[in-house]
Amino acid sequence: MFNGVFMYLCIWASIYYYEIEDIIPLSLSGTITILVGFIIYHSAKAYHVSSGMTKRDGYLIVTFGWVLMAFSGSLPYIISGTIPEFTSAVFETISGYSTTGASVLNDIESVNKDILLWRSLTQWIGGMGIIVLTVAILPILGIGGMQLFVAEAPGISPDKLQPRIKETARRLWIIYVSLTAIELVLLMLGGFNFFDALNHSFTTMATGGFSTHNSSAVEFSPYIQYVLIVFMFLAGMNFTLTYFGVHGKIRKVWENEEFRLYTLMIAVVTTVLTAVVYNSGWANGDLEKTFRDVLFQTISIITTTGFVSADYTLWPHFAVMIIFMLMFVGASAGSTAGGVKIVRHIILVKNAFLSFKRQLHPKAIIPVRLNGKSVNESVVYNVLAFMMVYILIYTLGVVTLAALGVDFITSLGAVATSLGNIGPGFGLVGPMDNFSNLSQPVKWVLSFFMLIGRLELFTVLMLFTPFFWRRIH
Amino acid sequence: MFNGVFMYLCIWASIYYYEIEDIIPLSLSGTITILVGFIIYHSAKAYHVSSGMTKRDGYLIVTFGWVLMAFSGSLPYIISGTIPEFTSAVFETISGYSTTGASVLNDIESVNKDILLWRSLTQWIGGMGIIVLTVAILPILGIGGMQLFVAEAPGISPDKLQPRIKETARRLWIIYVSLTAIELVLLMLGGFNFFDALNHSFTTMATGGFSTHNSSAVEFSPYIQYVLIVFMFLAGMNFTLTYFGVHGKIRKVWENEEFRLYTLMIAVVTTVLTAVVYNSGWANGDLEKTFRDVLFQTISIITTTGFVSADYTLWPHFAVMIIFMLMFVGASAGSTAGGVKIVRHIILVKNAFLSFKRQLHPKAIIPVRLNGKSVNESVVYNVLAFMMVYILIYTLGVVTLAALGVDFITSLGAVATSLGNIGPGFGLVGPMDNFSNLSQPVKWVLSFFMLIGRLELFTVLMLFTPFFWRRIH
Repeated sequence: MFNGVFMYLCIWASIYYYEIEDIIPLSLSGTITILVGFIIYHSAKAYHVSSGMTKRDGYLIVTFGWVLMAFSGSLPYIISGTIPEFTSAVFETISGYSTTGASVLNDIESVNKDILLWRSLTQWIGGMGIIVLTVAILPILGIGGMQLFVAEAPGISPDKLQPRIKETARRLWIIYVSLTAIELVLLMLGGFNFFDALNHSFTTMATGGFSTHNSSAVEFSPYIQYVLIVFMFLAGMNFTLTYFGVHGKIRKVWENEEFRLYTLMIAVVTTVLTAVVYNSGWANGDLEKTFRDVLFQTISIITTTGFVSADYTLWPHFAVMIIFMLMFVGASAGSTAGGVKIVRHIILVKNAFLSFKRQLHPKAIIPVRLNGKSVNESVVYNVLAFMMVYILIYTLGVVTLAALGVDFITSLGAVATSLGNIGPGFGLVGPMDNFSNLSQPVKWVLSFFMLIGRLELFTVLMLFTPFFWRRIH
Repeated sequence: MFNGVFMYLCIWASIYYYEIEDIIPLSLSGTITILVGFIIYHSAKAYHVSSGMTKRDGYLIVTFGWVLMAFSGSLPYIISGTIPEFTSAVFETISGYSTTGASVLNDIESVNKDILLWRSLTQWIGGMGIIVLTVAILPILGIGGMQLFVAEAPGISPDKLQPRIKETARRLWIIYVSLTAIELVLLMLGGFNFFDALNHSFTTMATGGFSTHNSSAVEFSPYIQYVLIVFMFLAGMNFTLTYFGVHGKIRKVWENEEFRLYTLMIAVVTTVLTAVVYNSGWANGDLEKTFRDVLFQTISIITTTGFVSADYTLWPHFAVMIIFMLMFVGASAGSTAGGVKIVRHIILVKNAFLSFKRQLHPKAIIPVRLNGKSVNESVVYNVLAFMMVYILIYTLGVVTLAALGVDFITSLGAVATSLGNIGPGFGLVGPMDNFSNLSQPVKWVLSFFMLIGRLELFTVLMLFTPFFWRRIH
């Protein structure tokens, strides 16, 4: 119903830009979406009252909720005729809601502005959905160590679960909306018109990466690019930390290990790659532009936003490889970024390191410590399981794409960028290309990967296990 | 001392082939090696008597034992002038002892036969070393779940550790030597002379892959290739299972999950790739040759032998990708094969699958089961740690090589093939090339990777942790 309302809101753009032909498609999409939502809401309410919610219901509701959003969200594209083909329209929608930013549109600038607004909105809505998902739902389902950072969330009171979740989500949404508004103003101060500023603010804060320009951020002014850099960085931060930062608890931000590594990685990668790329003669030896391009791409990939300011595939091999590896990093948990997330890498590396110590002293209990506290062994186990499944699913994805005839480099990049909700990849889906030329089966596979990546793998994949459907309790 | 004796034995080849110039180098190498061994043996014996052995001593002795072997084993190459450069000679020796099979020799056929015999012997000795290491030492050090299959070893009696280990090692060595002898005879029946048959038997059973021919197995007759296929397969089996098989306990072999998956993977990969490669017009549509080439390469890579019967880099992308992935499989634990090993993959995949079940029922205890028995949680944890370290180290290796100026594809292949003790890779170190053109730093890095891969990572890397050197107890 919420999505349907947003479709209706896009009609303001139809009116302002005289795109009268889209008013009926948008109204129709909005009406259908709200109606379907209304029916489901009331059936679900009845069910909830009669039997209560189980953990199983949680997995089903989240997964099918997102699938339903993918289908209803594609209505404006299909009915308006912007993307008439069903597969491509669903791909674009999932790419939106999952905040990936991979597009099938060849000429973005020729698309009506109201539809582009809807496209950017799908990402912004997706970002909002992810915040509530990570704060409220994934920790209850116990997925991949997502409990880790939620324990730090503001407004915590373990005995009152319901109010805490609502309150936490509300506070983080305020941060999200405020940052979007501030970015909007800063972009307009840099010469962006309201439409461009609004769309890019939506897709930055969602770490989505849809742009209203064909060449993404390549032709933007240095000022605009720096604004995007700052807000991509903020969008990749744990919103809980931002909340603390805003309330003056700077120390709490700086003492957070994930935030420190996030900052450190960006600093180190940018420094090294600036040197490497500068030496290769990039930008005719313009050091500032080289630094800016490298910083932009590093932050864009690590935060899984996917804006493109430079064709990184033209950089030296070493730089390309690092960019590829960044696709498996992901930014902070509790942000709108996708991928593995830095906190998981911290747990994994610390645990790998400590496993040497455990081997030397098999009887000693040697816990992983994070932010000065011992991490529960079951959380470490969950993180290990998450990483294993991530690698397994990634490998399966690459094999599947290769079996569908996609070349090796494109497969490696397309699956990494889909699973990590990034956007651009390598080969045929490089930063200067889009996903329109891929075959329909490949688009479905990648849509599936965007969805499972966004829902932290376990939420969706759980439905494919036999024991999920077996009623034990 | 044992190695020194083998160097002396190579003098028989010098005499038989009139390679008189090598008699002094071989005698000198043998004498130095035996002398150094004698000195260390007696110092160590004194130490052992005075203070007993700790677990720490285990790591140190194994690692430095292998490093010492690498240096002493290179003496015949250096003193004879076959490989005068120190770095390359050590690389070739480590490649031998670690049963990798990566070579720096450009023209193998021009090398004196006694030196080639020594080269093959390093692999055969390495294979013997690995058997005793996996049976006797790694389980005590508790490395990466190596306890798993040793519990199944013949002659087990937990209260009498010392005699059990000696007896087990003796029984497995008998299998090893017998299979080498049988292969020798079968190769000679196929027209090989004694020298070629002996060398290839040595390097097959060690899953080493050094050949005495420049083109490896490309020009061998189908009969010879099939013999190699069979014995590579046997060398990649758990020698304990072979022992049971020889003693008529066929059921015990077939019920072993690792063996079943080993067989199944080879069957599935060979079937699929035969179809793919055949369709690409390989071998002018000769189905038998295509099947043989695919089967040969599949077994050669999965067992980490590294013989080459066909340039697999010319196959379709999909086949190349599968070959690359096979480099991360490894054959059975308790064989002479390197790499991750299939039993670890079984544990990892089962555990990943069960982690879904655990998420659904957080309070239930859901153990991983192998061969019908529950696997201890600490073993699963060890396997997970091993895999994480493997991935971490692999990634670091690829970055290091790229930073040293090696291109992306070559880096990916060279590190995978070194760490997995396979032999051929991709790019500049593809199946038709060798490692001679790499720079000295790259050779050292790869030598290090061959060593840590062979010693199951933890044995060597332990020495690089700060807590290893801290005396807590």
